[in-house]
Amino acid sequence: MSQTVTDFEVHDIRFPTSEQLDGSDAMNPDPDYSAAYVVLRTDADDSGATAEGHGFCFTIGRGNEVMAAAIEALRPHVTGRPVPRTAADLGALYRDLTHDSQLRWLGPEKGVMHMAAGAVINAAWDLAARQAGLPVWEFLAGMTPEELVSLVDFRYLTDALTPDEALAILRAAEPGRAERAAVLRTEGYPAYTTSPGWLGYSDDKLVRLAKQAVADGFTQIKLKVGGEVGDDVRRMALAREAVGPGVRIAVDANQRWDVADAVAWLTALAPYDPHWIEEPTSPDDILGHAAVRAGQPVKVATGEHVANRVVFKQLLQAGAVDFVQIDAARVAGVNENLAILLLAAKYGIPVCPHAGGVGLCELVQHLSMFDYVAVAGTWEDRVIEYVDHLHEHFVDPVVIENGRYTTPAAPGFSARMRPESIAAHSYPHGPVWQARRIEKEEGR
Amino acid sequence: MSQTVTDFEVHDIRFPTSEQLDGSDAMNPDPDYSAAYVVLRTDADDSGATAEGHGFCFTIGRGNEVMAAAIEALRPHVTGRPVPRTAADLGALYRDLTHDSQLRWLGPEKGVMHMAAGAVINAAWDLAARQAGLPVWEFLAGMTPEELVSLVDFRYLTDALTPDEALAILRAAEPGRAERAAVLRTEGYPAYTTSPGWLGYSDDKLVRLAKQAVADGFTQIKLKVGGEVGDDVRRMALAREAVGPGVRIAVDANQRWDVADAVAWLTALAPYDPHWIEEPTSPDDILGHAAVRAGQPVKVATGEHVANRVVFKQLLQAGAVDFVQIDAARVAGVNENLAILLLAAKYGIPVCPHAGGVGLCELVQHLSMFDYVAVAGTWEDRVIEYVDHLHEHFVDPVVIENGRYTTPAAPGFSARMRPESIAAHSYPHGPVWQARRIEKEEGR
Repeated sequence: MSQTVTDFEVHDIRFPTSEQLDGSDAMNPDPDYSAAYVVLRTDADDSGATAEGHGFCFTIGRGNEVMAAAIEALRPHVTGRPVPRTAADLGALYRDLTHDSQLRWLGPEKGVMHMAAGAVINAAWDLAARQAGLPVWEFLAGMTPEELVSLVDFRYLTDALTPDEALAILRAAEPGRAERAAVLRTEGYPAYTTSPGWLGYSDDKLVRLAKQAVADGFTQIKLKVGGEVGDDVRRMALAREAVGPGVRIAVDANQRWDVADAVAWLTALAPYDPHWIEEPTSPDDILGHAAVRAGQPVKVATGEHVANRVVFKQLLQAGAVDFVQIDAARVAGVNENLAILLLAAKYGIPVCPHAGGVGLCELVQHLSMFDYVAVAGTWEDRVIEYVDHLHEHFVDPVVIENGRYTTPAAPGFSARMRPESIAAHSYPHGPVWQARRIEKEEGR
Repeated sequence: MSQTVTDFEVHDIRFPTSEQLDGSDAMNPDPDYSAAYVVLRTDADDSGATAEGHGFCFTIGRGNEVMAAAIEALRPHVTGRPVPRTAADLGALYRDLTHDSQLRWLGPEKGVMHMAAGAVINAAWDLAARQAGLPVWEFLAGMTPEELVSLVDFRYLTDALTPDEALAILRAAEPGRAERAAVLRTEGYPAYTTSPGWLGYSDDKLVRLAKQAVADGFTQIKLKVGGEVGDDVRRMALAREAVGPGVRIAVDANQRWDVADAVAWLTALAPYDPHWIEEPTSPDDILGHAAVRAGQPVKVATGEHVANRVVFKQLLQAGAVDFVQIDAARVAGVNENLAILLLAAKYGIPVCPHAGGVGLCELVQHLSMFDYVAVAGTWEDRVIEYVDHLHEHFVDPVVIENGRYTTPAAPGFSARMRPESIAAHSYPHGPVWQARRIEKEEGR
């Protein structure tokens, strides 16, 4: 049974989403949702179901080839390695990838090189969970508190969270794991939807989609803000009118503001009762988030662009956030996200993941479900973002019912993209991009 | 005179420094000092002296190809562009490179993609200064306060530093610019040396090099620490004995510690009077640095791995550092370093640049000299790091006399590597690396 990771494939996959203004916001007017995608192949003999691990980073177009090069740089740490199966294997892989001193210099633990490590680590989790015949959330929720603690790198965390404290959090949530897993399977996990609120959408489309969201069972929606304050007040008023007072409306500035801008803008939006302001300013600005939180009445959320566990630690230490928004593929994969879930639990702050993009819903549902079962032990004030984009490209897409994520049952991380989607959207030579190049040339 | 940037070359250059343990520290045991190197070519007709701009990022080996790919991703923003000559040109280039929303997603403003922007921006400064016939420090020091302010991106800074405040700082330093430039040309800028203190060196070598440093006129040296506390105390005691009480000894942990480790370790070293502790913990940990500073008597320095101006801003806001250590090639080049110099001036904290690596001394001397002439207006408590490595590969290497950097006189950024050095050390096909591969194969 000592199987080996024999091969390592990297794909540059891009979707021409900028043509529809799906995903448009104040900082990102024309994203082409993309994935730098990695496949770990093994010498296991069942060719497919359990013999491969898939993972990816999410980008918005240009530079996806740089991410692919960064994933390639990790190849020597992965090929030839025994197929990871246990917490010990997955902890060792995480440390090898993030502690390579020469590669660490390129971060450290941030940006392109760190996201690349996350893609590979998540692919290894996909593989290990498939080997165990479990979806990742159940695979994680079946580990002992000691095993879970062994997955975490506590370097730079011990002034906020020690291994013993982490163990105590996990042990306290141990009773009731099975019961909560059963509740999850029956009820699903609460979701909110961002689909109505992209900045490029017309007022009519916004209102129509907001009403549709409520009809679909969502109790929270989200609007992008940060273009022009008058537009935002108008859109917020329209949305509030469309959904009524009982539905939460989060707003998201995608890092558009300085501290004083954020305070002024949110003061203008406050009468319409925004549930949270997401990314009011730079994701690096811990003290800035704390100032925004102190300066106006709207609760503060951030995290999708937070580089690593050290910055999350400080956001919690500084009392800078009301909600922690993990991203499945920005930090170093499951292992680092486990550290962040534990930090949030220590500080009593709810985790409401960022999703959308390409496949981020598919990945992050596992982390929130695991959080509910084995870390936080509650879903109070917690919701997973849901965006209705690009799920058709995945083999095991998320299933939303009545505004909730249903539990994934297939083994693995729901991370596998359909082979025909990979082929069609490969950049620059896949047929989707070839066709566009020909069109452009003929249009001259 | 409307010349154009016509071509853009990228080189992956690596030096096998790990064979000598030069550059070894607690986090980086075996660096191969490397540069992802960019050459901007133009249609100017003098082929060389003023027709090219050279810049680079510094890495320590593996992953240098990822940096090279990131620089390549910036090509469309650069080729076809008019040759940059003015503050307006250089401000526009900086904004184009750092505000490309799709590429920004890969940071934002941190790690591989941000360092790549820095390399290209610094190459443009090299080119613009050559066009002006001036070394970069004089080119900068000849700009008006208004021009200098126009180079800075104040996004995320205005809660600490507004454009008006920056203008006031620069105007206050305007009288006396010429006089200070004359003083610089006569006296040079104070330096300290790290050459004695690498962690891989024997005690004998450490003592010999420490004494040599004092004989060479240095009044400050630096030791790497963070391996084992007993070793560090022994090495610190030996160094103190070697140099006597009048010479400053800085210590550098290269991010090795958590907060509590740092406090304990520095308490043990304090009797030997360390001048500063550099990088006690994660460069992202603003609150951690503040805790280290509050918890023990040694002054705190950091910056070589600080990702961008937003993190520097917070280090200053939080009172976390006694010295700001800019790096010429970690952030987005001259423009972002100008923001950091202005922030440090606002908070009254001295800037003591990180150097060493490949060509970092060559670059950063220009920024400190400009700081002296036109921003801080003083060199009190300020020193530039000096490491005696790899200068022979540069066309205009730094010149140290009696422990001070002499002013560079040649036009440009002193950034140009010798063509034969580029050819010899190109990775993986240059002769230096070919020879090693053959040796290795024969050694089997």
